[in-house]
Amino acid sequence: MKILALDTGQKSCSVAILEDEKTLLEMCDNRGMTHSHTVLEMIRQLLQRSGLSLSEMEAFALTVGPGSFTGLRIGISAVKGLVFDSKQPILPVSSLEALAENVGYEGMILPVMDARAGRVFAAVFERKEGVLNRLSADQVLEIPEFIQLAAQICEGKRAILVGDGSNLCASANDRADLNLLPPDHRSLEPLSAGAVGRVGKRLLESGDQTTAEALLPTYFQKPKAERMKEETTGRATGN
Amino acid sequence: MKILALDTGQKSCSVAILEDEKTLLEMCDNRGMTHSHTVLEMIRQLLQRSGLSLSEMEAFALTVGPGSFTGLRIGISAVKGLVFDSKQPILPVSSLEALAENVGYEGMILPVMDARAGRVFAAVFERKEGVLNRLSADQVLEIPEFIQLAAQICEGKRAILVGDGSNLCASANDRADLNLLPPDHRSLEPLSAGAVGRVGKRLLESGDQTTAEALLPTYFQKPKAERMKEETTGRATGN
Repeated sequence: MKILALDTGQKSCSVAILEDEKTLLEMCDNRGMTHSHTVLEMIRQLLQRSGLSLSEMEAFALTVGPGSFTGLRIGISAVKGLVFDSKQPILPVSSLEALAENVGYEGMILPVMDARAGRVFAAVFERKEGVLNRLSADQVLEIPEFIQLAAQICEGKRAILVGDGSNLCASANDRADLNLLPPDHRSLEPLSAGAVGRVGKRLLESGDQTTAEALLPTYFQKPKAERMKEETTGRATGN
Repeated sequence: MKILALDTGQKSCSVAILEDEKTLLEMCDNRGMTHSHTVLEMIRQLLQRSGLSLSEMEAFALTVGPGSFTGLRIGISAVKGLVFDSKQPILPVSSLEALAENVGYEGMILPVMDARAGRVFAAVFERKEGVLNRLSADQVLEIPEFIQLAAQICEGKRAILVGDGSNLCASANDRADLNLLPPDHRSLEPLSAGAVGRVGKRLLESGDQTTAEALLPTYFQKPKAERMKEETTGRATGN
């Protein structure tokens, strides 16, 4: 089964074509450019290189959040456009699960994405004998809250942080509640769309696919503009 | 420091531009095509996307073996061509070390490449606190010999096989001399040029750079045509 996979929810942008779990072609742009300029062009380049057409893709896997509001909307809009006239299944992948899948570490894996204002989007996974198991839901938490939650779940087992919240969380672990590997290049490795495709394949196998019409981002919090508006309104009315 | 990194010694072909350890752009083609058709075109596409010119690359990292004779020659010739009129340092990376760097596993890492006729190109590494340490030289061995060597070095510690010899070695470990993780997608993950670049950066720091004139592949065995010729000659003369 051929899967087109993409991630636009991080600072990096990545596109891959997979044959089941095997990455056939992959491209990653980690320069922090606006993804709207790059993602469709990257898809076109990979398809051209592959000699495959869009209609030969049997499913589309993409990260739907948590992550950058604008980035997620770009990826979702692109996929909605790509399947506009066809009916391929869409595989909505958790950005945190993709980050955990992205690292080949065996043990406790803590994907953490900076959600600003001292919070992280985070979850707890464990890879055991090569199989990635989810041990918590994706959530947005104050950093000390996440450290406590993860420490409870990890029970002293060595854990690796991955994602752009890694250094924030490592600094907040000053009492060593978590038994952490010091963040290294693996923590900040760009998310490969190959990992997104592999998680997507598992969603397909468990029947968790969706359609273009039903495809929605997973935000966990309101866009900053809306939060600021609410705060302003709240202040104005004295709440 | 900007590094252009490439690997043409595997079935896959990969090119990356790094800023120190950080992958800025990467592209990987894992369809098993002839690398002579793809590698220079991939370099051109990445440079175009980056807006950087070849002369802005401050070093070139590439795998020099062990690996496919033809693949290695293609990569080496390409780099010799690219630096023809300039003097950037060349960082000759062991394919086995790059494969070990490529997996985020913490513990014993056994990169193994199929060398045909029941043999593997192989080495033993350990990643400890994120740092990759070499525990054996790169060598070509009969598979059972490698299992014995690795078992001695690993002393019962859990090990992961990576590279296209993974399944061969796992099958040959029938007496469980090695405490192996069963091969999974990580074992056959295409080698990312980002990993080649990171190993290259370490070579530069330790002064292990070379020049286009001195750049040679690391073969470990003679090309098949030469071996066959020798065998034929041997047989003809009764040796």
